[in-house]
Amino acid sequence: MSIGIIGAGQLGRMMALAGYPLGLRFTFLDKSKDTPGAQVGDIVLGDFMQAEDIRRLAGEVELLTYDVENVPVQALREAAGDTPVHPAPAILEAAQDRLDEKQAFARHGIETAPYRPVDSKEALETAIEALGMPAVLKRRRLGYDGRGQHFIRAAADIETAWEALKGAPLILEGFVDFDREVSLIGVRNRSGETAFYPLSENSHEDGILRLSVAPAGQPALQSEAETQLKALMEDHGYAGILTVEYFEKDGRLIANEMAPRVHNSGHWTIEGAATSQFENHLRGILDLPLGSTRPRGHAAMINCLGRMPALEPVIRFADTHYHDYGKSPRPRRKLGHITVVRDDRASLDAVITELMPLIKAAEGGE
Amino acid sequence: MSIGIIGAGQLGRMMALAGYPLGLRFTFLDKSKDTPGAQVGDIVLGDFMQAEDIRRLAGEVELLTYDVENVPVQALREAAGDTPVHPAPAILEAAQDRLDEKQAFARHGIETAPYRPVDSKEALETAIEALGMPAVLKRRRLGYDGRGQHFIRAAADIETAWEALKGAPLILEGFVDFDREVSLIGVRNRSGETAFYPLSENSHEDGILRLSVAPAGQPALQSEAETQLKALMEDHGYAGILTVEYFEKDGRLIANEMAPRVHNSGHWTIEGAATSQFENHLRGILDLPLGSTRPRGHAAMINCLGRMPALEPVIRFADTHYHDYGKSPRPRRKLGHITVVRDDRASLDAVITELMPLIKAAEGGE
Repeated sequence: MSIGIIGAGQLGRMMALAGYPLGLRFTFLDKSKDTPGAQVGDIVLGDFMQAEDIRRLAGEVELLTYDVENVPVQALREAAGDTPVHPAPAILEAAQDRLDEKQAFARHGIETAPYRPVDSKEALETAIEALGMPAVLKRRRLGYDGRGQHFIRAAADIETAWEALKGAPLILEGFVDFDREVSLIGVRNRSGETAFYPLSENSHEDGILRLSVAPAGQPALQSEAETQLKALMEDHGYAGILTVEYFEKDGRLIANEMAPRVHNSGHWTIEGAATSQFENHLRGILDLPLGSTRPRGHAAMINCLGRMPALEPVIRFADTHYHDYGKSPRPRRKLGHITVVRDDRASLDAVITELMPLIKAAEGGE
Repeated sequence: MSIGIIGAGQLGRMMALAGYPLGLRFTFLDKSKDTPGAQVGDIVLGDFMQAEDIRRLAGEVELLTYDVENVPVQALREAAGDTPVHPAPAILEAAQDRLDEKQAFARHGIETAPYRPVDSKEALETAIEALGMPAVLKRRRLGYDGRGQHFIRAAADIETAWEALKGAPLILEGFVDFDREVSLIGVRNRSGETAFYPLSENSHEDGILRLSVAPAGQPALQSEAETQLKALMEDHGYAGILTVEYFEKDGRLIANEMAPRVHNSGHWTIEGAATSQFENHLRGILDLPLGSTRPRGHAAMINCLGRMPALEPVIRFADTHYHDYGKSPRPRRKLGHITVVRDDRASLDAVITELMPLIKAAEGGE
C-alpha cells in the first residue's frame, strides 16, 4: 500500500517511520529532498499549495494524507481525483478558519471563549465593547505557533493590533485566564471505531509548545473531552487522528483549536503509549483495527527549538528518547523533541527539571 | 552522522528505522533498490562480497557496520580504509568459522558441544568414533538457518553426510539433546560500558527460528551467560550488539554460536524493552551511553516465513505489532515478524496460541 503525504515535515517523517513496519510505502510532496520526510521516504518535488503538484502526487499513490494544515482545500479536492484523502477535506476546511472552527465546536455544544468576527476597525471596537478586555485579535486563517495574533490589554492596543493584522479576515476572542492548557488526541477509523489517548498537559513559551506531560486529566475531565471529540469525529465521518486543544479553567474545558492530524502534544505516544499516534493515524485512515492507546507509565515530551542539544548528555538519562527531525538550525524552529518515560510522576518531574536547562542551554548557544 | 550498512536486509532496515530519530543518516550497500533497507534509506548499488563496492560505500559514510555475517573480512579490512568498522572485522572473522568460534568460546571457558575438525572421510570416521552418534556434520563457514548441516544418527548416514558436504572445511559436533535453546544479547560501547537483555527462549522449525519469548532465564543462568558474553566482548574490544546462542541442558549452558550483530531472537526488544537492540547497536558503535535493556513485561516474537499474514487479523490483538520487511514472498523466507507484549506470561502464552495458527495458515496458503 502506497501513501502520499502532502508536506514532508516532521509529522510526515514520524508517520513514515511508524508505517514502514506495517509494510506501507511513503511518497511525500514538498519542495526539497532535504526535508524531514524526504530523508526517510520518496519525494515528489513540488509545491503543496498547487493543485497541479498535488495531482502528480495523487497519481503515484493509493491514499493521500497530509502533515500540514494549510493545504488549499479546493485544490486538494480537485487534485485528489479518485485517490481517497483522509482526514476528509471538509474538516480540514473547518480547522483552517477560526470562525468555522468555533461554529463547529458550538454545533456540538462544546464551550469556547466568546468571540466576534472582525472585518473592520469599527467591528473590532464593537467586539471589544461586547467581550471586554483583555482580548486577542487573531487572523482567522493560517496562524500557528502564536503567529498572526495580537493581544489587546487596553484601548491603546486596539490601533496597534488593527494595523498589524488588518487586510485579512479576523476574529476577536475573549481572553481566557486559564489554569492550564490540555489537549485530547483521538482516533477514528473509517468503520467508526474510536480510541482516545489520555489528556496531555501542555506548556507554551512565546506561543510555541515547549512541554507536554501525560496522563494529565482527572477521569471526569477525560470523559467529558472524549465525548466532545467523539461527537466531532462522528459528525464528519472522520478517519485518522483528531486533536482538540483546550484551556482548563476552574475544572471546565474551553475548546481553543482543533487539528485534523497528528499533533505535537502527542509525540510522547511514540514511547509512552502502547501504540503511537502516528501508527494509529495510519490505522484510522486505512480502516484497520485501532491500536491500544494505553499509556506506559508517565511520559513527558520537551520540544527542542532552534538548536538540538547534543545526543550524549540527553540519552544518559534512562528511558529518555531523542528525536532529531533532520532540519537545519534556525531560531525558534522546531528541530526535534525529547521524550522521557517513567513509572511515576514524581520521578518524571525530577528528570524534566534536570533536562530542561540542558535543552535550553543548547538553544541559547548560538 | 552518516552510517554505511553492508547488506540491505531486514536487520539493516530496522537499524535505520531506530537510528533516524537519533539524527543519523543511512546508506546501504546491496544489489537492488527494492531491498528492505534501501526502501527506507539510500543505496549504493553493488555487491557486498566485492572490496571495490565496499570501498565505494566507505567513501560516502563516516562509519561502517553490517547486517550480514558473510562479508569477506579481508576485503572489508582493505576497503574500509580510514572509515571505522564496528563490530571489528576480527570478531566477524571468528564468527564466520565454526572452528574459530568454538576456540574463542574455549578461551573464555565457555562450554560447547564436543567437536572435531573434519577434512577427509577418514577424519570424519575418526571423529565419529571419538564423539559417538548422534552427531552433526557442518560446514565450518557460511551455514545459517540449518543450511550446510547433516545429521548423523547411524553409520549409514556417514557416507550421505560426507557426499553432501565434502569439498568445504567441515566440523563434526556432538549432538546436544538439549532441553531448550536460549540466546543472550548484549551490547558494549567503545568506551567499555556493557548492558544485557534478558535471555530469550528460542524455538526453531526446520532449522529456522520460529518463536522467541523473553524474559526466559532464571537469575543464575542469566548471570552466567552475562559473564561469558562480557568476557567475549572485552577480549575483542567489541562495540555493538553481540549475541550468543545456547543450548540449555540440565540447567547448564552450552554455547552453540555467536553472531556479531543484531539478532533475530532480539526483535522483541523493539516494543518489549525500554531500548531496542537496534538503537543499542547504534549507541554501541557510536560510543554513546547505552540505553536501558529493561523488559516491558513479557514479549514474544513470531517469525513470518514465506508469506505474511494479513495485517488486520494480527493487529486486532491488543499490543500486537506487525513488522513487514518489504520482501517478496518465497517459501521459508523470513518476510517479517509479529511481536506481542503482555504484562504476564500466561496471557502472553494465550495470545501466542491464538496467533501461531493464523500465521502458519497464511504461510500454507500458497
